[in-house]
Amino acid sequence: MSLDFSSLDRVAASAPALPAFDEEAASAARARQAELTKPPGSLGRLEDLAIFMAGWRGDPRPHVFDAQALVFAGNHGICAQGVSPFPPEVTAQMVANFERGGAAINQLCRHAGARLSVVPLDLDRPTADFTEGPAMTEDECLDAMRRGADAVESPDILILGEMGIGNSTVSAALAHACFGGTAADWIGRGTGADAAGMARKAEVVAAGIARHPEASGLQILAALGGREQAAICGAILAARAARIPVLLDGFICTAAAAPLFAADPAFLAHCQVGHMSLEPGHRRLCEALGQRPILELDMALGEGTGAAVALSVLRGALECHNGMATFAEAGVSGA
Amino acid sequence: MSLDFSSLDRVAASAPALPAFDEEAASAARARQAELTKPPGSLGRLEDLAIFMAGWRGDPRPHVFDAQALVFAGNHGICAQGVSPFPPEVTAQMVANFERGGAAINQLCRHAGARLSVVPLDLDRPTADFTEGPAMTEDECLDAMRRGADAVESPDILILGEMGIGNSTVSAALAHACFGGTAADWIGRGTGADAAGMARKAEVVAAGIARHPEASGLQILAALGGREQAAICGAILAARAARIPVLLDGFICTAAAAPLFAADPAFLAHCQVGHMSLEPGHRRLCEALGQRPILELDMALGEGTGAAVALSVLRGALECHNGMATFAEAGVSGA
Repeated sequence: MSLDFSSLDRVAASAPALPAFDEEAASAARARQAELTKPPGSLGRLEDLAIFMAGWRGDPRPHVFDAQALVFAGNHGICAQGVSPFPPEVTAQMVANFERGGAAINQLCRHAGARLSVVPLDLDRPTADFTEGPAMTEDECLDAMRRGADAVESPDILILGEMGIGNSTVSAALAHACFGGTAADWIGRGTGADAAGMARKAEVVAAGIARHPEASGLQILAALGGREQAAICGAILAARAARIPVLLDGFICTAAAAPLFAADPAFLAHCQVGHMSLEPGHRRLCEALGQRPILELDMALGEGTGAAVALSVLRGALECHNGMATFAEAGVSGA
Repeated sequence: MSLDFSSLDRVAASAPALPAFDEEAASAARARQAELTKPPGSLGRLEDLAIFMAGWRGDPRPHVFDAQALVFAGNHGICAQGVSPFPPEVTAQMVANFERGGAAINQLCRHAGARLSVVPLDLDRPTADFTEGPAMTEDECLDAMRRGADAVESPDILILGEMGIGNSTVSAALAHACFGGTAADWIGRGTGADAAGMARKAEVVAAGIARHPEASGLQILAALGGREQAAICGAILAARAARIPVLLDGFICTAAAAPLFAADPAFLAHCQVGHMSLEPGHRRLCEALGQRPILELDMALGEGTGAAVALSVLRGALECHNGMATFAEAGVSGA
């Protein structure tokens, strides 16, 4: 199916037309799991992951021949308010590091067997300061969504990640606008804020929420988000249209997807969160989204690193699903 | 160093002579982590795993060129009391399945890059029923420990697992004897016990504990354990003597190691638990051992499967540690 990025309202209304989970393929995968040489259910979430892949790929014996990791990068107007100890130049410096292969995500993609695409989005043109007005116009937001969608190159699974100095503050604002609570509920140390920095982040988030009281659903993305957040939403939609399951990374990536969930929870049915971030707002956010991350390794780096480690687990799940003998094949007695 | 398996008391007294964690190599690894292009600590447990490997291998830039998974199998006299819904023949049938490559551990070892060695221990000669007397004589126990030690073939990391119908009951008895509580604290569904089966397991465990009130430390292993448990202890000791870090699997593998910890906690300093089992006693056991498993994926299969998945995570940790650029190399600005 083709996606319509002509307005945020059109995008928000598109959920019912998107491909659904293939219950038939999932049932066949579930039946196979019950015949494999192990007590029923004893592979736990490895079984769930195999069935998740079967349903979204429409294949009872799904494979990951091609895994693509997409890292979107953007810069943010609210950095002028001192929300990060790092200067905004670091966003472009880290993009260069990704391109030279020196970052954590490069090592973890190579290890997990994913190719990495890095998409910097107008790094020399930060979004507007959301405490003063909308971070993006609707057109800017749609443009970033389209670029995110266009970057998805028909893999069997998609890993999403991001880079953007200041974007843990942006993420706290998105989560706050989507799910309520207080600014303090959603902020954390990010890349290394101290107590004063945390207080500054909470003030900026609260001011952003106060500035955009009527924003709801996908309008939240334009009002408070950045280009990398919009691109993540676009990539999630493009993946869904092509029945490609998605592994979201930690707090920032999950928060980027929150406005889609606010518009319609069905938008995220093909997504799983790869890793529970050490960033404290992530636990609350995953609860709001009904997500239980695959891993919890105290990571808080972004870039897609948590999702890339989760891909290794998912590949192991498919190896078991496709490679194990059944009780009948192995001549093993039942209970 | 060479190990002395001439008596359980000699083994128990050997802890102070074993190689210690190399603080110098670990410090150098910690210093490197602080220079890599990421906020300090943001790779969480991946950083800890790299430093753990550095200290035990005595190498600031440790590698896993060779990973060995060892699965020990044994049969248990207490099966006559109906503690498992599966017949004891399944132990040998599953060993044949391991040898033909059809089990979960085969797929997960191939995926994680570990070679698999399967060591069946006198499957046609079950241990004695521990409710009637010691499960093993001291000589039988030492013989199984020796065979476990001999199976370790100088890898860079060792994965331990097991197979043995009835051994979740054996494990509950070992954990109970080492750490107290009640039989009910340590039992679970195992390979699929129903409520009546659970009650039967609790009775058998309580009877075993009552039968061996004076057993402590490594004597617990002979009184209540099986050959695969003793072999796991032997392999842990052989690994330590050669500075090989160990990934323990779930409940049964961890319980096998508990008598070593009861003899001297230092015996397990080079071990990490790969996966928190769904078997409820495992959480209590990990707390008693001061272990936080690397993964929690609702698995409860044994065979070494949880540890094999954890090996993928550990390999990712080393890829980051060895492959990432430093801030200076990448020209990325600091905070």
